Amino acid sequence: MNRVVLAYSGGLDTSVILKWLKETYNCEVVTFTADLGQGEELEPARAKALLMGIKPEHIFIDDLREEFVRDYVFPMIRSNALYEGLYLLGTSIARPLIAKRQIEIAKMVNADAVSHGATGKGNDQVRFELGYYALAPDIKVIAPWREWDLTSRTKLIEYAEKHQIPVPKDKRGESPFSTDANLLHTSSEGKVLEDPWDEVPDYVFSRTNSPEDAPDAPEIITIDFERGDAVAVNGEGMSPATLLAKLNDLGRTHGIGRLDLVENRYVGMKSRGMYETPGGTILHLAHRGIEQITLDRGAAHLKDELAPRYAELIYNGFWFSPEREMLQAAIDHSQTKVSGTVRLKLYKGAAHIIGRRSPNSLYSEKVVTFEDDAGAYDQRDAEGFIKLNALRLRLLGRRDGR
Amino acid sequence: MNRVVLAYSGGLDTSVILKWLKETYNCEVVTFTADLGQGEELEPARAKALLMGIKPEHIFIDDLREEFVRDYVFPMIRSNALYEGLYLLGTSIARPLIAKRQIEIAKMVNADAVSHGATGKGNDQVRFELGYYALAPDIKVIAPWREWDLTSRTKLIEYAEKHQIPVPKDKRGESPFSTDANLLHTSSEGKVLEDPWDEVPDYVFSRTNSPEDAPDAPEIITIDFERGDAVAVNGEGMSPATLLAKLNDLGRTHGIGRLDLVENRYVGMKSRGMYETPGGTILHLAHRGIEQITLDRGAAHLKDELAPRYAELIYNGFWFSPEREMLQAAIDHSQTKVSGTVRLKLYKGAAHIIGRRSPNSLYSEKVVTFEDDAGAYDQRDAEGFIKLNALRLRLLGRRDGR
Amino acid sequence: MNRVVLAYSGGLDTSVILKWLKETYNCEVVTFTADLGQGEELEPARAKALLMGIKPEHIFIDDLREEFVRDYVFPMIRSNALYEGLYLLGTSIARPLIAKRQIEIAKMVNADAVSHGATGKGNDQVRFELGYYALAPDIKVIAPWREWDLTSRTKLIEYAEKHQIPVPKDKRGESPFSTDANLLHTSSEGKVLEDPWDEVPDYVFSRTNSPEDAPDAPEIITIDFERGDAVAVNGEGMSPATLLAKLNDLGRTHGIGRLDLVENRYVGMKSRGMYETPGGTILHLAHRGIEQITLDRGAAHLKDELAPRYAELIYNGFWFSPEREMLQAAIDHSQTKVSGTVRLKLYKGAAHIIGRRSPNSLYSEKVVTFEDDAGAYDQRDAEGFIKLNALRLRLLGRRDGR
Amino acid sequence: MNRVVLAYSGGLDTSVILKWLKETYNCEVVTFTADLGQGEELEPARAKALLMGIKPEHIFIDDLREEFVRDYVFPMIRSNALYEGLYLLGTSIARPLIAKRQIEIAKMVNADAVSHGATGKGNDQVRFELGYYALAPDIKVIAPWREWDLTSRTKLIEYAEKHQIPVPKDKRGESPFSTDANLLHTSSEGKVLEDPWDEVPDYVFSRTNSPEDAPDAPEIITIDFERGDAVAVNGEGMSPATLLAKLNDLGRTHGIGRLDLVENRYVGMKSRGMYETPGGTILHLAHRGIEQITLDRGAAHLKDELAPRYAELIYNGFWFSPEREMLQAAIDHSQTKVSGTVRLKLYKGAAHIIGRRSPNSLYSEKVVTFEDDAGAYDQRDAEGFIKLNALRLRLLGRRDGR
Repeated sequence: MNRVVLAYSGGLDTSVILKWLKETYNCEVVTFTADLGQGEELEPARAKALLMGIKPEHIFIDDLREEFVRDYVFPMIRSNALYEGLYLLGTSIARPLIAKRQIEIAKMVNADAVSHGATGKGNDQVRFELGYYALAPDIKVIAPWREWDLTSRTKLIEYAEKHQIPVPKDKRGESPFSTDANLLHTSSEGKVLEDPWDEVPDYVFSRTNSPEDAPDAPEIITIDFERGDAVAVNGEGMSPATLLAKLNDLGRTHGIGRLDLVENRYVGMKSRGMYETPGGTILHLAHRGIEQITLDRGAAHLKDELAPRYAELIYNGFWFSPEREMLQAAIDHSQTKVSGTVRLKLYKGAAHIIGRRSPNSLYSEKVVTFEDDAGAYDQRDAEGFIKLNALRLRLLGRRDGR
Repeated sequence: MNRVVLAYSGGLDTSVILKWLKETYNCEVVTFTADLGQGEELEPARAKALLMGIKPEHIFIDDLREEFVRDYVFPMIRSNALYEGLYLLGTSIARPLIAKRQIEIAKMVNADAVSHGATGKGNDQVRFELGYYALAPDIKVIAPWREWDLTSRTKLIEYAEKHQIPVPKDKRGESPFSTDANLLHTSSEGKVLEDPWDEVPDYVFSRTNSPEDAPDAPEIITIDFERGDAVAVNGEGMSPATLLAKLNDLGRTHGIGRLDLVENRYVGMKSRGMYETPGGTILHLAHRGIEQITLDRGAAHLKDELAPRYAELIYNGFWFSPEREMLQAAIDHSQTKVSGTVRLKLYKGAAHIIGRRSPNSLYSEKVVTFEDDAGAYDQRDAEGFIKLNALRLRLLGRRDGR
Repeated sequence: MNRVVLAYSGGLDTSVILKWLKETYNCEVVTFTADLGQGEELEPARAKALLMGIKPEHIFIDDLREEFVRDYVFPMIRSNALYEGLYLLGTSIARPLIAKRQIEIAKMVNADAVSHGATGKGNDQVRFELGYYALAPDIKVIAPWREWDLTSRTKLIEYAEKHQIPVPKDKRGESPFSTDANLLHTSSEGKVLEDPWDEVPDYVFSRTNSPEDAPDAPEIITIDFERGDAVAVNGEGMSPATLLAKLNDLGRTHGIGRLDLVENRYVGMKSRGMYETPGGTILHLAHRGIEQITLDRGAAHLKDELAPRYAELIYNGFWFSPEREMLQAAIDHSQTKVSGTVRLKLYKGAAHIIGRRSPNSLYSEKVVTFEDDAGAYDQRDAEGFIKLNALRLRLLGRRDGR
Repeated sequence: MNRVVLAYSGGLDTSVILKWLKETYNCEVVTFTADLGQGEELEPARAKALLMGIKPEHIFIDDLREEFVRDYVFPMIRSNALYEGLYLLGTSIARPLIAKRQIEIAKMVNADAVSHGATGKGNDQVRFELGYYALAPDIKVIAPWREWDLTSRTKLIEYAEKHQIPVPKDKRGESPFSTDANLLHTSSEGKVLEDPWDEVPDYVFSRTNSPEDAPDAPEIITIDFERGDAVAVNGEGMSPATLLAKLNDLGRTHGIGRLDLVENRYVGMKSRGMYETPGGTILHLAHRGIEQITLDRGAAHLKDELAPRYAELIYNGFWFSPEREMLQAAIDHSQTKVSGTVRLKLYKGAAHIIGRRSPNSLYSEKVVTFEDDAGAYDQRDAEGFIKLNALRLRLLGRRDGR
C-alpha cells in the first residue's frame, strides 16, 4: 500500500485512524472531508490534518450539499421509499456519495486504497465498501475497526495520547450514545438507547423541538414540485439543498420527524435507533400529496410495490447496482407530470396534507360527480365491470359447491 | 325474482330502495341491518321495516362488531396494509362481512336476489357484489342506483313522499357531504370536499377532536399483542371490538387518525375523501412496533413487499379471493411469535412508539454491543460478507471499465 | 357518428361488419388493413373494400411488419415475458400496434369512431379498445359482435347474402377452429380444441412441422444480439422482421414452438388454445442465453420478478399504460450490455442453448477456478458471508429454542 | 471440539476430511451417509468408515429418498420454481435435508460440531451451513476446504497416501468435471465445461440419452395429481420416491431434462453447469398442466409472481427461513384443489402437455362458448368492463393532450 484516501471527519476517531494507517501500513494518507450538511465546520479538519503531517495537496474538503440533495435525496424521495415502513434512510443515502467522491479522489491522486471509520457491526461499512468496489473494482479497502486492537475507548485514547493526537474533553469518557448527521437527518444509537423498551431521553434529540415544546399554533406551508422534485417553499424557488434546509427549519420548529425504531441491519442483527428527519418527513409526505393527483393508478400502485425493494437496496448499500438503477429508471419514468403544489399543516410533531393542486391533475370533479358531458363514466358500465371481474370467483364458487 | 335480501340501514335511501324493489320486481323484501359499530340504533330500522310491510321473520338485525374486528380488521392489521401508502381501508374491510352475512340470510330465507344501496360510481358496489358472487355464484344482484331513474335528490324525495316514506327534515336538502361509518373509521366525501385544494372544513370531522383542541398533555398507553393481535390496552384484557372501541376513545381525545386523501378508485377515477380512523391508526402503528422486535428480517421484508398487493385486493373488493387468502396464509404464518407489549405516546394528532418489549424478542443487546459470549457475531466476518456481496459489482465494474 | 375506421381483414366477417356499420349507423366507413406478417395478400382487401363502396382514399393498407417486430416484439423479448409460465403472447403483442395505427388514421381522416371484429368473449376486444381509449380518450368504439343480432353463423351468412357480400365456400359451414396469425405466431382455438383433455388434431397446426416429421439431424445456429435485440442469424445481419421470418423458417422445419395451453382470459374464464411460435420460441430462449453471461445477478433476478407482471399487462391489453412503460424503462435499462452470440441446437420440436459468448461477458473462468490474481475471490471470505447471512437465522433459532 | 458429525460419502475427498478432522481437531468423528437417490451403494461407506477407525455406533446411514421427494422436491414442484427461468434446483433442494439430518444426529450423539465437503467457491457450503445454523444456532461448523492447505489434487492425494487412505485409480488424476447427483438430478461442472461457448461433450451426460439417440416413436404417459402432488404414473399409484424414479426412467429414455446453463451463484460469480433432471422436468411441466385447469387466475398469477423469489431462496440456501415458509404457506394454500390427470407426450428431448382433466376443473366449455344457461357470461358486460378499465387511461390521455 502506498497511498490511502481516508474519509476524514477531523474528529478523534478518524484522527486516530489517520495515524494508525500511517503506522500500520507505512503509507501516505490523503484525507477527504465532505460537507453533507452535518452542521460542522470543515476548516478545523484541514488544520488538524496539516498538523498530523498530511500534505496540503492531499487534503480534500468538498461541499457536496447540493449534489447530495439533488442526486441522492431527491431521487429517493421520488420513490416514496421507507425502510421497514417507517425509516427515511437518512444515513444510508449519504454513504454512496461519500464513497463515490472518495474513489474519484483516489483515482486523481493515484491511491491504491481507501479507508473509513465505520465499525464492524454496522451497516455503514457495507455501504461504503460496496460503493468502493462497484466504482473501483480493484481498490484495496482498509477498515481499521475490523482490523486493529483498539477495541475499547480506553485503548483508543491511550493510542491518541501516545501519538500526540489531541483528545477533546467530552471524548474522554464513553459517550452515552453515538450520532450521525447530514442535511437529511441525524441518527442516534447505542448505550442509553439500547433497551428498546426505554423511552429515548430528551437530551438525545438535537435537530427538533419536542412536540410538546413546539408552537401552539399550526403553520401552513406550500411546497411546489416539478417532475417529482420540490422546487419551492411558500412560493419561493430554492436550490435543492437550500430547500431541504428550509424544510429542516420548519420541521425543527414544529417537532416533526422524530422516529424511534428497532430495525433490521443488513449484517443480521436488530438495532434500535432514534432518527430526526425534520425536512425529509415533510418532503416525503408532500411528495405523496402531489402524486395523489398527478400519478395514474397503474403507475402509483407499481411504485408502491417496488418501493420496499428500492428502500432495502439503499439501506443495504446497493445504490451503485444495476437493480437500483433499473428501479430508478422505472420510478423516474413515472415522474414527468408530477408537478404542482401541496399545502401542508405543521403542528406539534406532525405534518398533514390539507390541499394539492396541479396543472397536470388527473382528478376530475366532473367525472366523480355526474356532470361529465364527454361521457367518460356511465354508471351502467359498472355492472359489466363487476360481472366480468366476478366471473372467475363465480366459477370458483360453483366448483367449490358454494 | 321472488325474494330479495336488502342491506337495509333504516335510512331514507334504503327505505326508498325497499319500496322500489317491491314495486319494480313485485318481490318480497327481506331486510338485513348490521351493527358494525357505526354508532346508530338498530331498532328503529326494525320498526321502519315493519311499517313498510316487511314480515317480522324477514327482518334480520345482527350485531357483527366482534366478528368484524376479529375476523376482518385484525387479519388486515396483521398485514400492515395501507392503501396508497396512507389509507387504513376502513370502508373496504367492512363490505365483505356485510356481503357474507347477507348471502347467509339469502340462503336461509331462500332468496334469489340481494340488493344494496351503493351508488354506481363508487367502490362499494364492487366490494358488495364481488362478495355476493364469490359466495353465491348464481345469486341475482340488484343495484338500484345503477338501474332506476331516481337520479336526483328531488326525484328521490318525491318518490318517498308518494309512497308514504317519512323524509327526515335534514334529508330534504342536499347534504354537504356523505359519510360511512363503522367501528374502524368514518369516511366523508363529496360536495364540500370535492376540490382537493380546499382544506376539509371543521364540521366534517365527527370522530376525532382537532389536534389543536386535543389535551395539552401527552398520554402514554400500552397495547399488548398475542400472535399479531391486540389483546389488552394498558394491561386490561379486552375482546377485539371492545379493544378497538377503547382505542377509538383514546384516538378521538388526542385527535389521532385524520387523513385527507385523494385516492384511486377501482372503477377508474380519482376521488377525494377524508377519513377518521382513531383507534385503527394507533393499532396499525403499535403492530409495527411489536413486529420490530419479534419478526425476523426475512419475514418482515417479505411482508412489506406483499402489503401493497394485499391492500389493493381489499380495496378492490377481493377479500373472498384465492389470492387474498394465499397472502393471508403467508402473513398469518409470520405472526406466531408476534406477542409482547408496545408503549405509545398520544399527543395532538399523532401517535408515537416509545417502547416495545416481548418474551419473543429477537433484539439482543449482547449481539448489538460486543458482549455476546456465544460468539454470534465476529466483526471479522463482515469483511467476507461485504466482499462476497461486492463480487458481482466488482466483476461488473471491471467489465464496464471502471 | 359520421365516419368509422374499421380494422378490416377483407374476410367475410369484417366485410359483414363493414356493411352493417353503414346500415346501422348510416356512416362512412374507412378501412384499415395491416400486414403484420399474417401471410395473406392485402390487395384483395382493397379490391373488396372498393367493391363495397369504400372511397379509394378511405382504404388504408399498411405494411407494419418491421415496426411490429422492432417496437413491439423485441421490447417484449427483452423482458423474457411468458404469460402463465409458457405463452409467448403472440396475439396480445400485435393488438396495440393495430390500435395505434387505427387511431392515427382516425385522426387523419377525422373519424369519430373506430370498430373491430373481435368477439365479446375474448381478450382482443379489450386489447383493441384499451389501446383506442388510451390514444384517443374521446373516440367512440363500435364492437359489432357485442351489439348486433347476427349471433350465429347462419344469420351472418344470410346477412352477407342479402347484402351481396361474397361468401367463400369454406366459410359456409362452421369452421372446426378459429385462428389468428402474425409474424410472431399463429393461434388456434374453439370447437375441436374445446375439450382440454383431447389432443390437438394434426390438421390444426399450420406453422410448424410436427416434431416427428422434423429432420432427423439437428441443426446448429447462432443468433447475434446487440443491446438485447437479435441482429443476425448465423452471422448474417438482418432487419427485425427479416430475422424473425428467418427464425420462423428454422422453427417450422424443426417443429419448434408448439404449445397446447389452457389459459386464463382477462375477461374471466379459462380457454384452451394452441399456439405455434416457431421463431419466437427460439428467440426467447436465445435471449435468456445471452443474458446469462452479460447480465448481472441483481438485474437478472429483478427482471425475473417483474416479468410475470409485465406479461400480464401485455396479455390484458395494457401496452399503452404508464405501468407497462415503467417496467419497460427498467428492462431496457438493463439491456445496454446484452450483446454477443448464442449458439443453439434445433432438433425435433425443441431448441437447446449449447453455447454463448460476448465481449461484455461477466463470466470469468479465472474467478470460478482459482487463478484470479487480482484476488476478486478469497475462499475465506465465504465464512464471513455465510455467518452474517446466518446471523438472523441463528438468533431466530435461539429464540425458538432450537 | 470433542465430536464432529461429518457428511460422509465414502469417497476419497470426504475420507481425507475424516482423517484431517481427527488430526487437526483431535476429535471424534461421526459419519453420516444419506441415500438421496444418488445411485451409489452406501454399505461401502460403512466399511470404509470402520476401517478408518469410526466406532460402529458412530456410523449413520439413512435412506432419505422418500422424505427427500415428499418433503422437499414436491413442495418445490408445487411452486413451479425455476431458478433464473430454467433451472429446476436439483442440487439446492437436497442440501437442507442433509443439513437437517446431520443436525439431528449431532444432537443425538451430543456432537459440538458438523462438517461438510463443499468447497469455498460454491453455493453448497452456504446451503449446508445456513441449514446448520438455523437448526442449531450454536453449532460449530468446520469447512475443511476453506481451512486446510490441501489446495491441490496432488496435495490431497499425498495426504491420503500418507494416511493409508485408499485412492481409487480414477481419482489419481484430475477429473475432467465434477458431479453431484440425487434422485432429482445430476449436475456437472468444472474443467471441460468451463468455457460457456463450448458445447457440453457427450461423455458428461450420465442420466439421459441424447435426444438423437432417443426412441423414434413418442411415448404418451399420464400423471395423476392430488392436492398439487403427483400420485400416479399411467394410472399406477406410487410413493413419491418411486414415482420420481419412474419418471426418471421415462425421461432418461427420451432424453428429457438436459440443461446447459450459465447461472449466478449466491457467492457472487457466474458459473456454467450442465444439469440432467429427467423426471423433474416432466413433473414440473405436468404440474403446470394440472394447475391450468384447477387453479384460479388470481392464485395462478400470484404464484407466478412469487415463484422467482421462492426459487432464489432455495438456491441461496434459505430453506429453513421464515420467508420461505411464508411463501410455502401461500403456495400450499393454493393447492387444495390441484387434483386430476395430465397427459404428456415424451419425444426426443422434450415433454409436451397434450391433455389435462380434473374433477375440480374450472374450465367450462359452456362459458367459453355461448351455452351457459346460468348466464355466467353476458357479452354486453364486456363493454362496461372495458370502459371502466379504460377510464384511467382516458383521463390520462385527455390530460396529456392525446
